[in-house]
Amino acid sequence: MSEPIRVTVWNEFRHERTDQEVQAHYPDGIHVTVAGFLESLPGIETRTATLDEPEHGLTDDVLNATDVLVWWGHLAHAEVEEHIVDRLQNRVLDGMGLVCLHSAHFSKIFKRLMGTGCNLRWREADERERVWVMEPGHPIAEGLGEYFEVPESEMYGERFDIPSPDTLVFVSWYQGGEVFRSGCCYHRGKGKVFYFSPGHETYGIYHQREIQLVIGNAVRWAAPAGSAIPEFGNRKPLEELALG
Amino acid sequence: MSEPIRVTVWNEFRHERTDQEVQAHYPDGIHVTVAGFLESLPGIETRTATLDEPEHGLTDDVLNATDVLVWWGHLAHAEVEEHIVDRLQNRVLDGMGLVCLHSAHFSKIFKRLMGTGCNLRWREADERERVWVMEPGHPIAEGLGEYFEVPESEMYGERFDIPSPDTLVFVSWYQGGEVFRSGCCYHRGKGKVFYFSPGHETYGIYHQREIQLVIGNAVRWAAPAGSAIPEFGNRKPLEELALG
Amino acid sequence: MSEPIRVTVWNEFRHERTDQEVQAHYPDGIHVTVAGFLESLPGIETRTATLDEPEHGLTDDVLNATDVLVWWGHLAHAEVEEHIVDRLQNRVLDGMGLVCLHSAHFSKIFKRLMGTGCNLRWREADERERVWVMEPGHPIAEGLGEYFEVPESEMYGERFDIPSPDTLVFVSWYQGGEVFRSGCCYHRGKGKVFYFSPGHETYGIYHQREIQLVIGNAVRWAAPAGSAIPEFGNRKPLEELALG
Amino acid sequence: MSEPIRVTVWNEFRHERTDQEVQAHYPDGIHVTVAGFLESLPGIETRTATLDEPEHGLTDDVLNATDVLVWWGHLAHAEVEEHIVDRLQNRVLDGMGLVCLHSAHFSKIFKRLMGTGCNLRWREADERERVWVMEPGHPIAEGLGEYFEVPESEMYGERFDIPSPDTLVFVSWYQGGEVFRSGCCYHRGKGKVFYFSPGHETYGIYHQREIQLVIGNAVRWAAPAGSAIPEFGNRKPLEELALG
Repeated sequence: MSEPIRVTVWNEFRHERTDQEVQAHYPDGIHVTVAGFLESLPGIETRTATLDEPEHGLTDDVLNATDVLVWWGHLAHAEVEEHIVDRLQNRVLDGMGLVCLHSAHFSKIFKRLMGTGCNLRWREADERERVWVMEPGHPIAEGLGEYFEVPESEMYGERFDIPSPDTLVFVSWYQGGEVFRSGCCYHRGKGKVFYFSPGHETYGIYHQREIQLVIGNAVRWAAPAGSAIPEFGNRKPLEELALG
Repeated sequence: MSEPIRVTVWNEFRHERTDQEVQAHYPDGIHVTVAGFLESLPGIETRTATLDEPEHGLTDDVLNATDVLVWWGHLAHAEVEEHIVDRLQNRVLDGMGLVCLHSAHFSKIFKRLMGTGCNLRWREADERERVWVMEPGHPIAEGLGEYFEVPESEMYGERFDIPSPDTLVFVSWYQGGEVFRSGCCYHRGKGKVFYFSPGHETYGIYHQREIQLVIGNAVRWAAPAGSAIPEFGNRKPLEELALG
Repeated sequence: MSEPIRVTVWNEFRHERTDQEVQAHYPDGIHVTVAGFLESLPGIETRTATLDEPEHGLTDDVLNATDVLVWWGHLAHAEVEEHIVDRLQNRVLDGMGLVCLHSAHFSKIFKRLMGTGCNLRWREADERERVWVMEPGHPIAEGLGEYFEVPESEMYGERFDIPSPDTLVFVSWYQGGEVFRSGCCYHRGKGKVFYFSPGHETYGIYHQREIQLVIGNAVRWAAPAGSAIPEFGNRKPLEELALG
Repeated sequence: MSEPIRVTVWNEFRHERTDQEVQAHYPDGIHVTVAGFLESLPGIETRTATLDEPEHGLTDDVLNATDVLVWWGHLAHAEVEEHIVDRLQNRVLDGMGLVCLHSAHFSKIFKRLMGTGCNLRWREADERERVWVMEPGHPIAEGLGEYFEVPESEMYGERFDIPSPDTLVFVSWYQGGEVFRSGCCYHRGKGKVFYFSPGHETYGIYHQREIQLVIGNAVRWAAPAGSAIPEFGNRKPLEELALG
């Protein structure tokens, strides 16, 4: 893992410019809040990018300098251009980490990498969510207790239409009677993807200590690692092909 | 599982009309050979569909009468229309089984459901493949020994750019020095997907007993099963939301 | 899969002989209730065995005639003799199915096959459990809706100290604030193991339609299938070892 | 992850005292060779322990100062005392990492944690092994190419009677016609276990650069991490249990 880890925090940045309730929580945008607490961690460097920048702020130059991309989107998934999604998918397959937050379950890049509908049940009712650790030895759970609570949360409930995670790190309980696979790890190509569901624009969730801890851990886990990028295609045999 | 299982065997059906070597093995097309041995199994009914039929032979009427779709394609993946791929993806997510054979690793529908590049190493050198059973209790391995051999096979080798299978049923050995995850099970939505790599248009592989056994087993495994199709979206709480 | 599936339902059968509340629900023992509804299903034959029989009722003759063993124990796990546990483990590795119910999470045979402590949180408070389907295409979920409720249940909560299941079929929600991986599939050797948590001696849970449906489905899923029992040990090469 | 990672390299240390061929490769014992190259890595501290020391060198004091235990055994698995195996299992469940090398597939501690027979096919024929990376983004593959070769290896072949790994990092090809899941990751309790098959007492495999790289990576991966050690047992509800 190269140090520092270079993180680009992407946000569609629409709610924060139009909705006073959202502005109260995230006056400069969710991306600035997320980049802010990540920047405070040792060994992490951040930049931000938003939907309305040229190429959504995700030029080749930016991605060349990105080890892990953090994604937040909600209203405007459809406005993300297909060729940028192609570019992101290729980057992940070549090793870039991707951390998808909350309503990014419905982002084009997450759906593309999952291959499924990624739909779920949801409800906005200011209810309590309790996030339980399923895999206590996983580095994304580092520093947590057995569970933590989000005092007011949007409910995201099963059936969540995703492939079964390579590692299921968190499962959430909701007051209204649902459960949710709220922390899910995937390998896709040489890249690693983490989906983490808590976090909504009208709650101060990204200011919560445990949430920040998890996102920081996820960035470290998702940072590029491993062996050479595989080469594909027509190949000579590595062994002599004896007449057999 | 409803009986009989209604299988549609899809083939792009190009090689067999232009290449004498292929015709020698599959004079009526690979689809006819595959449908033929499936049809001979109890509890299975088959039909076929090919690329050059209207809607590639995959109309809503056909898919309404399809429990499991078997897919063979190679030259003409690009000619499969996107809206048909959308339709197939939705059918799988709603429970239709999908069995992808050999070069279907690069089909649009397989790549769509995997979310990765699905690329691999390959070589045509008439070499021996030995297919090892990794999960001897899996129903797709029913009736096999610990391994079986394909006397002349196209090499498909790792790195195979797929998500780690939910269940890895087979791993192949090749004379030329490679290995390959040759039998891979996935849940996608309510549907089940099986990828099985042996089989090439210039070899008589689909006439081999073990290959036919595996494809028959895979069709049974992939047949629709399980609980109700989930309903998604905004939902009322199932429990009273106490002030808390 | 051979038909009929021969099921042995094992019960420690202690509570039912000493506790009137338990007797009210299961006058002849939980094993008789479970065997009763399984016996009513097509293609399933049952017998029962209990702790206080010689060899706990699990002689070689009985096991030779057992395709799937269903296990219920609670008070007296420690009384199950080690050599019988060895025998059961070997049977599972050779292909016998095992369905462990409720407090069988702490049975010697389940712990042996898992390799972990299998501990959990628990509480008896007559609270509601809601069992959510995680994998709607899995045959163990056949016939269910998106979830079902157990009106009064013993709480079993995470962290549940098990290996991550090969397939996670159910996750439960509890009124008291916990979640639990309540339906877990494992391959162990050539055998298949399903753990299903709902069910307690002081509740009539095994009379509930959905519970019976799941246990019946689990028996079918766990029935022996697959390839030959592997042979291990020193082996001659399958290919000529060229000097090379 | 605490730094430095404190590694105890355990060896049964019998072959090296009786067999000249083994002595030629590992004059001070395999443990000294393995500890030697680990010690040279930044952030790793090592000690060694062997079978014939009191408590096999694995006292509570030693284990209190052990983050990751590396295990090599072959001839004398049966001599490892059960109460020490109990102790090791508990340590792993509480978070200690375990890296099992080669013939440690048959060690009591590995079999205990797997729950299966852990048997395999084997052959000593000085044949070539080619280790393929299955998961190129995994930290245990860090620094490798797409594959590496072990010029002379003992064949370990499938069927390998293990639970399906949480992550399958390597699959090996052998000249003699077999394949093997040669690099396998597991979570067990809060601990992480890695099995790595290359390495035999009569070959200089532990002097090979790639082998040392993998074992170093595995130690870092297996180092304790994650959330609090779970507390089990009878628990009060976290939510008010409404009459309902």
